[in-house]
Amino acid sequence: MEHQVKYLLQESELPRQWYNIVPDLPSPPPPPLHPGTKQPVGPDALAPLFPMALIQQEVSPDRFIDIPEPVVDVYRLWRPTPLFRARRLEKDLGTPARIYYKYEGVSPAGSHKPNTAVPQAYYNAQEGVTKLTTETGAGQWGSALAFASALFGLECEVWQVRASYDQKPYRRLLMEAYVLNHVLMHQTVIGEEAIKQLALAGDTPDLIIGCTGGGSNFSGLIFPFLREKLAGKMNPVLRAVEPAACPSFTRGVYAYDFGDTAGLTPLLKMHTLGHDFVPDPIHAGGLRYHGMSPLLSHIYELGLIEAVAKPQSECFAAGLRFARTEGILPAPEPTHAVAACIEEALRCKETGEEKVILTALCGHGLLDLSAYSNYQAGQVEDFDLPMAAVQDALTRLPAAV
Amino acid sequence: MEHQVKYLLQESELPRQWYNIVPDLPSPPPPPLHPGTKQPVGPDALAPLFPMALIQQEVSPDRFIDIPEPVVDVYRLWRPTPLFRARRLEKDLGTPARIYYKYEGVSPAGSHKPNTAVPQAYYNAQEGVTKLTTETGAGQWGSALAFASALFGLECEVWQVRASYDQKPYRRLLMEAYVLNHVLMHQTVIGEEAIKQLALAGDTPDLIIGCTGGGSNFSGLIFPFLREKLAGKMNPVLRAVEPAACPSFTRGVYAYDFGDTAGLTPLLKMHTLGHDFVPDPIHAGGLRYHGMSPLLSHIYELGLIEAVAKPQSECFAAGLRFARTEGILPAPEPTHAVAACIEEALRCKETGEEKVILTALCGHGLLDLSAYSNYQAGQVEDFDLPMAAVQDALTRLPAAV
Repeated sequence: MEHQVKYLLQESELPRQWYNIVPDLPSPPPPPLHPGTKQPVGPDALAPLFPMALIQQEVSPDRFIDIPEPVVDVYRLWRPTPLFRARRLEKDLGTPARIYYKYEGVSPAGSHKPNTAVPQAYYNAQEGVTKLTTETGAGQWGSALAFASALFGLECEVWQVRASYDQKPYRRLLMEAYVLNHVLMHQTVIGEEAIKQLALAGDTPDLIIGCTGGGSNFSGLIFPFLREKLAGKMNPVLRAVEPAACPSFTRGVYAYDFGDTAGLTPLLKMHTLGHDFVPDPIHAGGLRYHGMSPLLSHIYELGLIEAVAKPQSECFAAGLRFARTEGILPAPEPTHAVAACIEEALRCKETGEEKVILTALCGHGLLDLSAYSNYQAGQVEDFDLPMAAVQDALTRLPAAV
Repeated sequence: MEHQVKYLLQESELPRQWYNIVPDLPSPPPPPLHPGTKQPVGPDALAPLFPMALIQQEVSPDRFIDIPEPVVDVYRLWRPTPLFRARRLEKDLGTPARIYYKYEGVSPAGSHKPNTAVPQAYYNAQEGVTKLTTETGAGQWGSALAFASALFGLECEVWQVRASYDQKPYRRLLMEAYVLNHVLMHQTVIGEEAIKQLALAGDTPDLIIGCTGGGSNFSGLIFPFLREKLAGKMNPVLRAVEPAACPSFTRGVYAYDFGDTAGLTPLLKMHTLGHDFVPDPIHAGGLRYHGMSPLLSHIYELGLIEAVAKPQSECFAAGLRFARTEGILPAPEPTHAVAACIEEALRCKETGEEKVILTALCGHGLLDLSAYSNYQAGQVEDFDLPMAAVQDALTRLPAAV
């Protein structure tokens, strides 16, 4: 046991249900509103955009939702994912803390994104959809959906943000080689597996750290642990890490806003920097969303999670240290979580605490080598958050409800 | 059992010994010779180049060599690697064959290369070496050695072939972020694990297929199975697949030749196209070596393995089909093995044979997207082997012994 590094589950231990945290919360999240009437938007209004099965999941009162068998069949290609104990990183840091990371980079798209891309493609195909269209930031989502669409015979059209596209020319082909929406719940397979794996390791987490862009990776990791915490079975601190250049939790406001820059979505109550705030072009493209998931924002307001922000140079340095010790180069997004883990582990070195830290390495950085190359060449800037621009964007929030 | 896709071993099942096939062969391989005296080169002549522990392994009469504990500690980062049943590919092909693939792309360098890079770096460090220098073709070896060197505190200088370097600009950084020689034995961990995993699956292989450049991936996969075959416990056909542009087994001669283009090494008896034959610049850079491992060449001459050659366009098509069904984009090297698996599976479709086929996917293709992009753009050529150039190169073989 002492020298175990990798905690693996058998295929039979793959979760068969997604966890829906909403019924377990002390109060429900505020509903989405129609931008004109300011009245709650019912499931019917979502029907032109989403298959009914996903809309039902959005409003389900059930704590657990069965994962369809064809989705489980696809999950089997890479799930359960491994949980690693970062023994070499711990040694390098000289910390008494025990650091575990759940590694989602083993998926076909190299990130956690297929966990939800696959069921979304499946439900769309089930309801007769033949073509999906999506936009993608850093390209991970587009790749994941292209893969999932191909599996279920769907055509897929992906629109990528130009700045991200230019930084990652080769992501395009992965999308072409495969052929598209976020439901945090689908990502809970990550946390469910991690609970079993930490039990195998004989440890209980004191602190769980994850990076947040829209919030799906973090939610997928922590929701099952939050369920256990709310039930009094464990008491981990839950810490979100966001980029200093786009800090919706730590510098945004909690208000109704549009989910998209164009202002076409229903109004969502969330932590936002203003829907038309454009963050500086940091390399962690997946973390540049102006807002935060409404459900995760609600949970933050309830005081159930905390948040910190990190500048990208600290994150790249943490990513390289991780690669040199653990042998996996993290994508720029999870380097934010790695930086926060290292910070905490060094704090434990000072205090002598044998804290158990868990994080999720939500994707590998093999398609981000140009970003690391820029960092090593001294070409990565830490942007100060332009507070004037945020204040300006916030003046264009929809009228308070 | 019916729907199992992934066969995983626990860390405790990681092999603790490498398998040395030489004592099990009906006759020993011919020795390396001094180019001047034409006399066998003894271990002492290798001492300036290699640590004594590795030289002892080269000439060891023992069937099994203990893997040092610090090497096992590193192997644990990614080993045991998964064995997959390619159910989606089988379905797509409509074949009754059962196809299994051992996936080595989960390693830090994304290929099988760290299996030997790590012990080589370890033994060098143990004997006081502080800096390693190597050349690398496609970059996978350089990446693997850079990673291994960093783990044991060694400096590492890597020289890369210009054609490969230009095709894969981002491989460079992976070498910079981490910091050589092939011993086939180190790779036998692949086959040892696969034996256990096929037993878990309840299957015995009828055919084992692997791609060959220098031969380490193929040897690592088949040597443990060949041991079982020589002992009468199973009877798989063992098939090497080489590129049509560099077919040392199928079009080369079995003769003493230099291992390197410059003619500086001892003379090695092997299948060779002539040490100064320069193959066309195919994308599977790892398969462009003019010769074949002397040990594997000897085993081929003994009639224990067979070989076929494949043109690269067929291989790229097979790689894309694999990616679209199995979700993993293979490196150009293992697409050769995938193409041969598909060919055999389609043959089984005709005959109705429920053949059990095993292959090794020795690396992922995430750093080879530009090659796939060229293929999809119709820019990948199938080169005819320039037999005149081979005949010419063969006139410069060292004088027959």
